Amino acid sequence: MSRISFVNGEYLEHKNSYVHIEDRGYQFADGVYEVFGVINQKIVDYHGHLNRLYNSLNQIQLKSPIHKSAYFFHIKNIISKNHVKNGLIYLQVTRGAASRDFKFPKKIKPSLVIIAKNLPDNEYDNNFQKGIRVKTTKDLRWKRVDIKTINLLAPVLAKQFAADNNCEEAWLVDDDGFITEGSSSTAWILKKNVLYTTPLSNNILNGITRQSLIYGLKKNKLKLIEKKFNIDDIKVADEAFITSATQYVMPVVSVDKFKIGNGKVGKNAKIFRKVYMEAVKLI
Amino acid sequence: MSRISFVNGEYLEHKNSYVHIEDRGYQFADGVYEVFGVINQKIVDYHGHLNRLYNSLNQIQLKSPIHKSAYFFHIKNIISKNHVKNGLIYLQVTRGAASRDFKFPKKIKPSLVIIAKNLPDNEYDNNFQKGIRVKTTKDLRWKRVDIKTINLLAPVLAKQFAADNNCEEAWLVDDDGFITEGSSSTAWILKKNVLYTTPLSNNILNGITRQSLIYGLKKNKLKLIEKKFNIDDIKVADEAFITSATQYVMPVVSVDKFKIGNGKVGKNAKIFRKVYMEAVKLI
Repeated sequence: MSRISFVNGEYLEHKNSYVHIEDRGYQFADGVYEVFGVINQKIVDYHGHLNRLYNSLNQIQLKSPIHKSAYFFHIKNIISKNHVKNGLIYLQVTRGAASRDFKFPKKIKPSLVIIAKNLPDNEYDNNFQKGIRVKTTKDLRWKRVDIKTINLLAPVLAKQFAADNNCEEAWLVDDDGFITEGSSSTAWILKKNVLYTTPLSNNILNGITRQSLIYGLKKNKLKLIEKKFNIDDIKVADEAFITSATQYVMPVVSVDKFKIGNGKVGKNAKIFRKVYMEAVKLI
Repeated sequence: MSRISFVNGEYLEHKNSYVHIEDRGYQFADGVYEVFGVINQKIVDYHGHLNRLYNSLNQIQLKSPIHKSAYFFHIKNIISKNHVKNGLIYLQVTRGAASRDFKFPKKIKPSLVIIAKNLPDNEYDNNFQKGIRVKTTKDLRWKRVDIKTINLLAPVLAKQFAADNNCEEAWLVDDDGFITEGSSSTAWILKKNVLYTTPLSNNILNGITRQSLIYGLKKNKLKLIEKKFNIDDIKVADEAFITSATQYVMPVVSVDKFKIGNGKVGKNAKIFRKVYMEAVKLI
């Protein structure tokens, strides 16, 4: 069975899926994206992701190449054609192909790509049981990371730095020593039964998984404070987590050379995972 | 005559030049680039640009897909196949195509694309006579703009903001109110026969055109001070300029609502253009 991707109106074999070399996504990172989790063939928090996509498009003055209602159809098609049970959908919209010029070209059709990825059924659970290790590094990103764009070289280099240090995620540190977020996730710590995460600003992405977890926490009367934290806070944290569209709620067992709690997945991790899984909408 | 581009080892019709949708240049801005000016079929400052390309590659831990000596061959071929008299060569190297993951994939072949663009013979001279208008805007870029990467959405939005305000270039303003550089050029002002430009740091690109002009200035005993300047300095400047690989030395006639000098191209503009043109190496 060959993988199928959606590229500018066509369903193509993934290996034969191409875009023009002057697509502005390729020359300027001039585009936005979303990653949708897929659980049991259903899309996780579809409307949250789609609304954020439209917000990203607006922020960079890019028009969707298809009607808002058509995304659901194509995403469901891609899930079905690729027999995705558990995995993810990657979707990106770029400003399209035009002779290279920094300013926006006139009369250009934006490009749309949708890719499916299957993940082994037990991958998330296996990772959850081990937890992940985090490495901190300087936040070198641009100043509008609240927009979910493909301008991603800084988080790429941060994630690679984490990997070079045998860690699975990088936590990004601002000029004042505070954690903004992970290279591709939201960062959380638990201290005396209170969860902490960075408040929204231009310096972090308004994570859809973050939103759903917060919704679940409120529903379950679990205490959350949206407040910046630094390495000193991390050292005395009882537990730590990341959240993202593909990692859901994932426990963190170490940050740099510091064990979180006893260095194993804490007892509250499963609670937050349950709270999250009950809060998400699957369609 | 059809345009020809170089894509991963092949010379292809430009309109049929494609890269895979999972090329990391397209998903992560994970790549670097150079723009070489072409004057009378010759490459401007070839070695300066090529050495900077290799520095950029090293900075993001990317290996060149071809031997260093092979670039000259392919660039000259592309100039010849496209009959470029005056114009530019755009060249980019990305980390190549792999299943999407922030960290670097193992065993991946980087992608190389070379594109030629012809420019009308009189375009530069016409623009020079009119000069360009500059709009200032906040510098939102990432913190390693000294590396010439395709992580360019911030300068794209800045240039578009300038265009929306009937200006040809944006000058980027840091948190302290100083101009770092243009969205795709180096910024200069002339005050009492002294040229000023921002000193090198992680906050600006070490422009090859900047280097050649500085070389020429020294040779001609013209005074340059590498020092940051702000809008108050601009208001009292006698002349202003940008430099870039395709605009060479280009006079600036206004910045925001402020005329530079009398709002026309100043008398020193031609001197600096001459100094630059004598300093460049053409091969």
